Amino acid sequence: MQGRSSTATAASAPEGGKPAVTVVDCDVHPHFVDGMKDLEPYLSTAWRKRLGMGHAEAWAKEVYASEVSIPKNVLYTNPVGVMRRDTVPEDGSVPCGDPAFVVRDHLEANGIDRAVLVGGSVLGLGGLPDADLATALASAHNEWMSETWLAADPRYRGSLVVAPQDPQQGAAEIDRVGERPGFVQIHLPLVNVLMGDRWYFPIYEAAERHGLPVAIHPNSIDGIFAKAPWLAGGVYTYYTEWHAALSQVFHGNTISLVCQGVFERFPGLKVVICEGGFAWLPDVMWRLDKDWRSLRDELPWLKRPPSEYIVEHLRVTTQPFVEVERRSHLTALLEIIRADQTLLYSSDYPHWDFDHPTRALSGVPQETRSRILADNARELYAERLL
Amino acid sequence: MQGRSSTATAASAPEGGKPAVTVVDCDVHPHFVDGMKDLEPYLSTAWRKRLGMGHAEAWAKEVYASEVSIPKNVLYTNPVGVMRRDTVPEDGSVPCGDPAFVVRDHLEANGIDRAVLVGGSVLGLGGLPDADLATALASAHNEWMSETWLAADPRYRGSLVVAPQDPQQGAAEIDRVGERPGFVQIHLPLVNVLMGDRWYFPIYEAAERHGLPVAIHPNSIDGIFAKAPWLAGGVYTYYTEWHAALSQVFHGNTISLVCQGVFERFPGLKVVICEGGFAWLPDVMWRLDKDWRSLRDELPWLKRPPSEYIVEHLRVTTQPFVEVERRSHLTALLEIIRADQTLLYSSDYPHWDFDHPTRALSGVPQETRSRILADNARELYAERLL
Repeated sequence: MQGRSSTATAASAPEGGKPAVTVVDCDVHPHFVDGMKDLEPYLSTAWRKRLGMGHAEAWAKEVYASEVSIPKNVLYTNPVGVMRRDTVPEDGSVPCGDPAFVVRDHLEANGIDRAVLVGGSVLGLGGLPDADLATALASAHNEWMSETWLAADPRYRGSLVVAPQDPQQGAAEIDRVGERPGFVQIHLPLVNVLMGDRWYFPIYEAAERHGLPVAIHPNSIDGIFAKAPWLAGGVYTYYTEWHAALSQVFHGNTISLVCQGVFERFPGLKVVICEGGFAWLPDVMWRLDKDWRSLRDELPWLKRPPSEYIVEHLRVTTQPFVEVERRSHLTALLEIIRADQTLLYSSDYPHWDFDHPTRALSGVPQETRSRILADNARELYAERLL
Repeated sequence: MQGRSSTATAASAPEGGKPAVTVVDCDVHPHFVDGMKDLEPYLSTAWRKRLGMGHAEAWAKEVYASEVSIPKNVLYTNPVGVMRRDTVPEDGSVPCGDPAFVVRDHLEANGIDRAVLVGGSVLGLGGLPDADLATALASAHNEWMSETWLAADPRYRGSLVVAPQDPQQGAAEIDRVGERPGFVQIHLPLVNVLMGDRWYFPIYEAAERHGLPVAIHPNSIDGIFAKAPWLAGGVYTYYTEWHAALSQVFHGNTISLVCQGVFERFPGLKVVICEGGFAWLPDVMWRLDKDWRSLRDELPWLKRPPSEYIVEHLRVTTQPFVEVERRSHLTALLEIIRADQTLLYSSDYPHWDFDHPTRALSGVPQETRSRILADNARELYAERLL
């Protein structure tokens, strides 16, 4: 499948060179088609046994401690369904399970020149209590993504996943596959250790070593973190509450990354926040800059106002995009967060609250829009994207 | 101490009427001077014994389980000190412990016509595991505030505190003192139950019955809530991180109050968020409105976009005020959150990050500024403020 899009918004090939990249979707979610069995070819016999693979009886899924699965959100249901209904293939299989279908249904239909994949079936990997098992699944998933997705179309780019439960093994996995063509970033599922904690330093060192950004994403397990079963304030009741509260995770991890001096220690590190929105950023930037002016004795390793580290090192994807009452409010928001540097377009295909590249961003000034749709991603992922 | 301020910003008396109220400070923190002993006159012998009062030995403070105290933040220290040094009286006593001193040092010096007191020594009341003890302390604190502060100057107004551990007894306390002159709102210290939970309904019913707003505030105990020892994402290391992350508590409780339909059930209820800032509000308003358009099946009791409930029922105090790069960003923020209705000036006297009524708000358009400095508070507290 080498065909390129021919829609109006798609890239045109400059003479004698590679086709231009004008729209980059930084958050697309490939799913397993047959659950964990998709990983079977990439797992040792011992791990297959530990996972309970081979219990063919249907009842095995209904009892405890028979098969391992990666934890999913089971506390909330989305009343309109988490997947766009029109992303379900005609044979009724899993949305975003077939690379060729997604090329037609999303890349070509919407003029997407590059799609950065974030594994939709491993978002909850951090919820597994066994660090070795999680590490083995991460490696298997990276092989699966290479063979099933990256090899299927030249427009796909991959996020190599690491198990956050064991950062040393995570770093080794980055060394193992980080230079393979097709991978453009590291996907770090979160646990209840804030991102500034030195716990993650081996991963950040490896990220710098290979020039790969680190991406985080909501992880679908309840309350976001396996070991911290609530967001700020308590346990939410409804999907709407939980979904609106997700901002807090990114609010908190941004504070942690900046204040702990991670970006002074790892000056080459870039962090990508997927599917967290971005309207929470002004609060973080303003609060941190204001506090830093008074309290910097506490954080002597910070040499510049916190917002400068954010603009330099943090990238946020657009989805879910804000819907504002007045155009001037969007303009102010984009200026405050320096969207011309920090913001990356993402559709979140095949999820229910999909954002189309031109329709969702129609209120964005033209110059900023092209930065968001492609330029910021090109600068971030550089030659790996091309 | 009946003297009124004569500074330029203070109220002038209209002919034949009460003096005008042009600056209302909605968050000032009276403290105990001698710790819990200040409450001794208002407690029964049995409670004094349970509290360990009378253990005069100095070592009693150094051992476990000898004296009860209300939990305080002991995990973080503020590198510049939590209290403004210039609020310490010459005799070295507690800042904001002497009502007459505060009249001179704050009300008259800064042209404050009314100061709404939020007990600075009971912020962590929700951290006590014994609901009956917390209830007894709340009642004692209300008597102490009446006699020590409200009787001392006609410009003081009080927040009657209730123990969140037992909402039925909290409602009874509201009935007991809610109509006393001087009290203008209910101070609800939080525990790890989100504010939309029916747990609090007896308190909301009593609040409506007496026409009293319910105010919440950071509570100084670690991670904010006794039973939920972290904010979103994990445990923060530094004061700066913890302080910047406080927004999350108010982000989360606003989501909870709106989504659970509290404002449909209690249409007369007003909630005041003290010292939480307000730059987190656009994210909540936009996310909830956007989700509500798609997901309203889940919350059929919501008859209007969530942001409309927020504008009608929620009030936020200004401190800590935002410091922006461009005037237009502040204008956009104030428009988005409908500051002409929702925002109340507060100084947070005697805390370190004090905001002066005119200097902190100098970038606010004149018309909105007078709404923030007094009109919104006058509409909220009505005749109780005058």
